[in-house]
Amino acid sequence: MRPLFNKVVIVGVGLIGSSIGMNLIKRKLAKEVIGVGRRRANLREAVRRRAVHRFVGVQNFKPLQARLSENDLVILATPVREIIRCLGVVSSKPLVMDVGSTKSSIVKAAEKNRIRFVGSHPIAGTEKSGAGAGEIDLFRKRVCILVPSRFSGKMDAPKIRRFWGLLGSRVITTNAARHDRLLAVLSHLPHTIAYTLVRTVSRLVSKKECGQLAFGSLKGMTRVAESPPEMWHDIFLENRDLVLKGLDLYLAELAKLRSFLLKKDSARLLGYLRQSQKIRLKMK
Amino acid sequence: MRPLFNKVVIVGVGLIGSSIGMNLIKRKLAKEVIGVGRRRANLREAVRRRAVHRFVGVQNFKPLQARLSENDLVILATPVREIIRCLGVVSSKPLVMDVGSTKSSIVKAAEKNRIRFVGSHPIAGTEKSGAGAGEIDLFRKRVCILVPSRFSGKMDAPKIRRFWGLLGSRVITTNAARHDRLLAVLSHLPHTIAYTLVRTVSRLVSKKECGQLAFGSLKGMTRVAESPPEMWHDIFLENRDLVLKGLDLYLAELAKLRSFLLKKDSARLLGYLRQSQKIRLKMK
Repeated sequence: MRPLFNKVVIVGVGLIGSSIGMNLIKRKLAKEVIGVGRRRANLREAVRRRAVHRFVGVQNFKPLQARLSENDLVILATPVREIIRCLGVVSSKPLVMDVGSTKSSIVKAAEKNRIRFVGSHPIAGTEKSGAGAGEIDLFRKRVCILVPSRFSGKMDAPKIRRFWGLLGSRVITTNAARHDRLLAVLSHLPHTIAYTLVRTVSRLVSKKECGQLAFGSLKGMTRVAESPPEMWHDIFLENRDLVLKGLDLYLAELAKLRSFLLKKDSARLLGYLRQSQKIRLKMK
Repeated sequence: MRPLFNKVVIVGVGLIGSSIGMNLIKRKLAKEVIGVGRRRANLREAVRRRAVHRFVGVQNFKPLQARLSENDLVILATPVREIIRCLGVVSSKPLVMDVGSTKSSIVKAAEKNRIRFVGSHPIAGTEKSGAGAGEIDLFRKRVCILVPSRFSGKMDAPKIRRFWGLLGSRVITTNAARHDRLLAVLSHLPHTIAYTLVRTVSRLVSKKECGQLAFGSLKGMTRVAESPPEMWHDIFLENRDLVLKGLDLYLAELAKLRSFLLKKDSARLLGYLRQSQKIRLKMK
């Protein structure tokens, strides 16, 4: 099989970026994979783990770009706001793709700059980060959401779709608004819960007590609070309106349950829990 | 080894009750294990799965008790409020133990009735229920919290401690107030979150969309909303004051995060997330 791409430049060689790189090299989907980043130790780790062939510092991103052609791919794999900044300086010759967790403001920035861009969001993140956490099977059996933009070529979205398929992902295509609406509820809201719950727990229970009684439900619920704060800062702010909408509805549900407890309203409380259980059982 | 107990009566042969019964029979810790319950189909399933040798309906609990002696054990494994009701009618001759998720009101009821009682709470529940869900290894490597009462004999708590140890649990002894304070935060609060979050999600995302995008973080967070509503109704009401205290602190944390989003306060938001991550990383 001929490689899908000639050169691939990965900007941001973290968990997602390095895992993509490993696939590009191992599956021979690109002739050359180049990492771009700030932290040299992380970039060196990426080379050591065969996630990139070589790397350059961010200051060399521009001269590197000048040499890219139409068969090349630039992958923006930094936190969302950095992706948006990159879209202001990226060349429009190679195909550009991102892996950000929000889409509306990213696609808007790409279209404003008339970039040949296909947005994608592999639902494959974990609480880990950095090139050291990358793994070749990260995208296997996971969903990847594709959000094409106005200035991508006719064959660009199908090529990116094929690329994710080769990495083992199930690809769903939708628009940026729907992506952000779904993600606000299914991912961003749960993350606000994890980040706030760990603080609540730490105010009421000592570290020792918490360690002694290792509760599965609490641990599972707060695991994602280990995710990189910089990444989630950007996601929350870029998808702010929809996150706030979800948060307000959630606060209203909590207030309802709270009032049943406050009033010792046994019947309503039981009805509420029964309906919740019913909803969850259908959620499979 | 001589059996630990002569007869053991298990009132409520659900997930916990049937898993205990399986251990009693398989490990020969009791000469006879008798189930007491309402639903005959469930009791028959318990016999089929060797969780009990035989069973009687609730109406026969009293005559059954009259024949129990000091070497016997009664295990109350129903929802919390039913445990409290049982403590009003149970004999004070055999040793009585419960497996309820709250302790203050249960120990109070046992002491009021001068029952020979040792409270215990195996932290081993899952979202499953019924004798069909019972499993022999349910308590292995799990914590069991022991809460002795005023009217248990000198050797009773050590015997119950030994019993849980034989089932593979790590036993911690504490008092009812501390148990309920810890559980309110580490277990009951997370359950209120699961029950309210599934409803929030169902109001914003269709069942089809939810199924299509199977998010790990959301699924993990809401899994426990499948737990029996009757059981959690009792837990929330019996530990109401402490659950409300936890809920109010949690609501304050959510309000804080919400205000940072509302004001687009980037610096405070980032600081908040960083501190949460730090807390969670220490939670191992």
